[in-house]
Amino acid sequence: MANRPTKRVSESMVEMTELVLPQDTNPLGNIFGGRVMQLIDVAGGVAAMRHARRVVATVSVDRMDFKHPIKMGQIVTLKAYVVYTGRTSMEVRVDVYSEEPITGDRVHTTSAHLVYVALNQSGQPVPVPAVVPETEEEKARFEEAKKRREQAHSEKAH
Amino acid sequence: MANRPTKRVSESMVEMTELVLPQDTNPLGNIFGGRVMQLIDVAGGVAAMRHARRVVATVSVDRMDFKHPIKMGQIVTLKAYVVYTGRTSMEVRVDVYSEEPITGDRVHTTSAHLVYVALNQSGQPVPVPAVVPETEEEKARFEEAKKRREQAHSEKAH
Amino acid sequence: MANRPTKRVSESMVEMTELVLPQDTNPLGNIFGGRVMQLIDVAGGVAAMRHARRVVATVSVDRMDFKHPIKMGQIVTLKAYVVYTGRTSMEVRVDVYSEEPITGDRVHTTSAHLVYVALNQSGQPVPVPAVVPETEEEKARFEEAKKRREQAHSEKAH
Amino acid sequence: MANRPTKRVSESMVEMTELVLPQDTNPLGNIFGGRVMQLIDVAGGVAAMRHARRVVATVSVDRMDFKHPIKMGQIVTLKAYVVYTGRTSMEVRVDVYSEEPITGDRVHTTSAHLVYVALNQSGQPVPVPAVVPETEEEKARFEEAKKRREQAHSEKAH
Amino acid sequence: MANRPTKRVSESMVEMTELVLPQDTNPLGNIFGGRVMQLIDVAGGVAAMRHARRVVATVSVDRMDFKHPIKMGQIVTLKAYVVYTGRTSMEVRVDVYSEEPITGDRVHTTSAHLVYVALNQSGQPVPVPAVVPETEEEKARFEEAKKRREQAHSEKAH
Amino acid sequence: MANRPTKRVSESMVEMTELVLPQDTNPLGNIFGGRVMQLIDVAGGVAAMRHARRVVATVSVDRMDFKHPIKMGQIVTLKAYVVYTGRTSMEVRVDVYSEEPITGDRVHTTSAHLVYVALNQSGQPVPVPAVVPETEEEKARFEEAKKRREQAHSEKAH
Repeated sequence: MANRPTKRVSESMVEMTELVLPQDTNPLGNIFGGRVMQLIDVAGGVAAMRHARRVVATVSVDRMDFKHPIKMGQIVTLKAYVVYTGRTSMEVRVDVYSEEPITGDRVHTTSAHLVYVALNQSGQPVPVPAVVPETEEEKARFEEAKKRREQAHSEKAH
Repeated sequence: MANRPTKRVSESMVEMTELVLPQDTNPLGNIFGGRVMQLIDVAGGVAAMRHARRVVATVSVDRMDFKHPIKMGQIVTLKAYVVYTGRTSMEVRVDVYSEEPITGDRVHTTSAHLVYVALNQSGQPVPVPAVVPETEEEKARFEEAKKRREQAHSEKAH
Repeated sequence: MANRPTKRVSESMVEMTELVLPQDTNPLGNIFGGRVMQLIDVAGGVAAMRHARRVVATVSVDRMDFKHPIKMGQIVTLKAYVVYTGRTSMEVRVDVYSEEPITGDRVHTTSAHLVYVALNQSGQPVPVPAVVPETEEEKARFEEAKKRREQAHSEKAH
Repeated sequence: MANRPTKRVSESMVEMTELVLPQDTNPLGNIFGGRVMQLIDVAGGVAAMRHARRVVATVSVDRMDFKHPIKMGQIVTLKAYVVYTGRTSMEVRVDVYSEEPITGDRVHTTSAHLVYVALNQSGQPVPVPAVVPETEEEKARFEEAKKRREQAHSEKAH
Repeated sequence: MANRPTKRVSESMVEMTELVLPQDTNPLGNIFGGRVMQLIDVAGGVAAMRHARRVVATVSVDRMDFKHPIKMGQIVTLKAYVVYTGRTSMEVRVDVYSEEPITGDRVHTTSAHLVYVALNQSGQPVPVPAVVPETEEEKARFEEAKKRREQAHSEKAH
Repeated sequence: MANRPTKRVSESMVEMTELVLPQDTNPLGNIFGGRVMQLIDVAGGVAAMRHARRVVATVSVDRMDFKHPIKMGQIVTLKAYVVYTGRTSMEVRVDVYSEEPITGDRVHTTSAHLVYVALNQSGQPVPVPAVVPETEEEKARFEEAKKRREQAHSEKAH
């Protein structure tokens, strides 16, 4: 592993912007949770592809809370980046913000942590570069993710 | 609470069937995790509406593992039903199966637990009927869900 | 034909559930007939695939009446199953119900009868198992379908 | 009825053109029957709106045969026009053609007859202009439609 | 070039009809400009395919003005045809009209000029038939297009 | 005009990321020009909304060249920001890049200039803040846009 390639967190950074359309919302005009989950997975998947430069598949999604409703006509912004890497897997954090276009009010609506695995052409897992956290915040998120992965692993082992 | 209305688990049961189309898949022909999450939220939302007979909103989604890839051309079946109720919230379990149409092979690909809240016309939470588990399996899932909700609550309190 | 494989009606049973979204409806808030026809064909196609375990193509659709409007926000449920089989073709019945999520009122909105043909990899028709009706209702529907197919055949012959 | 307004067949004429995309097709690359039905209903609905200058709803669809598969990448053309009118209802004929873009080969794949009803703002049926067939072909189709409607009516009465 | 095949303008003529649905519109109920551009490119692409009988790719789009808003529920009609040809490229004119279904009022909302190139199976440009303008209007548009292409070419050369 | 509010270019900055799916591409696997135009208009519209904090409508789109094909499976990134303002209108520049996920190769595929107008609740144009270019590049683009708008205006006046 001495020569394993490395990448900075910022190299996988993705920003996505979407408008909430009528087809995305329930009769109260709020976006469906499932539509948000779909956007989260696309943003997270692009971040994982930028890190691994491979086709990727979603392996798991951690618990998500939807703290504030997002309304029709609002702008949704997602920021995604790799926070932690295993040998063939990557944990990606996705932050979702809603923005009211007329007032400019911007609210953090949810954070998600997803694990992706890098695949070769025949669909088998392949090694990914090790992510190197640089800022204090990146280092803190790296440690949190490490704990989450160890906990998930130990739960599976039982 | 003495007079609180009750409902059986079976009254909220939902079965959904979908075909996996090219637009749902990555270059390896596997369905996107986010598309599965979207189907899960629709199935879960219909189960919650059938229980509460109200408009509902997704509050949270528990950790999900995607154990097996689902391929283009396969049939996806989802089964959803309410397993536990709070005062205004409902936990719904959604099981996802993929079926290979030519061989008939059927695989359990993931289980999800989502919490929905019932809303009145002005978007405020309103009480829901209490779910009454009847079979041994329903009772076991009720107890598991109760623990999950208590744990989630205690994590938030910290 | 002595050894022709057989299948029960229940082996092809499909249940589909959909929410009516704004994009599915006209300015009065009623679902487009064409959207219902599309859902009917997907449900019927999955039933035919489950019976034949083959790729299938729609050959014809019998006369359909749309008896009640389905409104935005309502739940649409479809039940589909094979009622009759020719050598390479299958007649599938699809029943469509709409459900008002708040009141739980459920209405039968239409029944459709579609004929599908089973195809091999090069797109040529191939034999399908013979369907075996078991209940009184299945037997009655088998006989009705037989008459419909004979009548359609005689009309074509003219 | 002496002063009932009239319209020519040509005043409701609609031509639609679509490209068959991957999402419209099954694993053999043929368009789904349900997608064709949806296009037929949109073309027919626009013809009925042009005749009645009202919102319209689909009441019934006559038996349709899908004679030739339509392939991915082909051009689909639909022609729709009102052939017959009742007091508040209109029968529309829709002809569907597929065109191979490279060779220019053009095939008639199906004809459909749909009945639409004109609705006012509160969703109640309202009278439509009487269609006046002019050419020999229009007159023949008017008579055929009249027979179909009388037959459908007598079947319902039983 | 003496034997270069030719085609009349009318041989590439395309008519498209679409209904404006909720998902196509902004909070004021007007269609998004980008949705109109997408319809224009599909109509123009089919005209270019009909002229060249080849797969085609969009090379450029001239300046477009959106003169009148198109509202939800209105009918959009597009007419497209090849007005000018280079060796491997075709200029297509697309006229867009909106129609109010209740009143029948019809408005010309925009004209677009797009350049397409014909491609062989390996994606390389291939010669197209020369378009032959016949009517006075076709000849005038041929000359205008010729000037536009020469100007575009000279701007690129600088 | 002395007290007219102002905004910096950076305040309207938008970044959008999309994956090219099968439904976006022609039989050669290249994205449709019309799909790119649609993404451009959404990105540009969000930039205009962020500048004006109003609902906006697309007024015109300048000539666009599509210099490089974008392939299925690639990542499309769009950057949009207001470069120039009239009294009620804004010119937005949108740059489009395609990125090959495996190699990371990134290509500038097109630049677009669109004009949007800010609208009040009744759909009437309303004044927008004046954009203030700060960097040398912003100042150069402001001057270019000013010339484009004056030229477009003088062409209309003829």
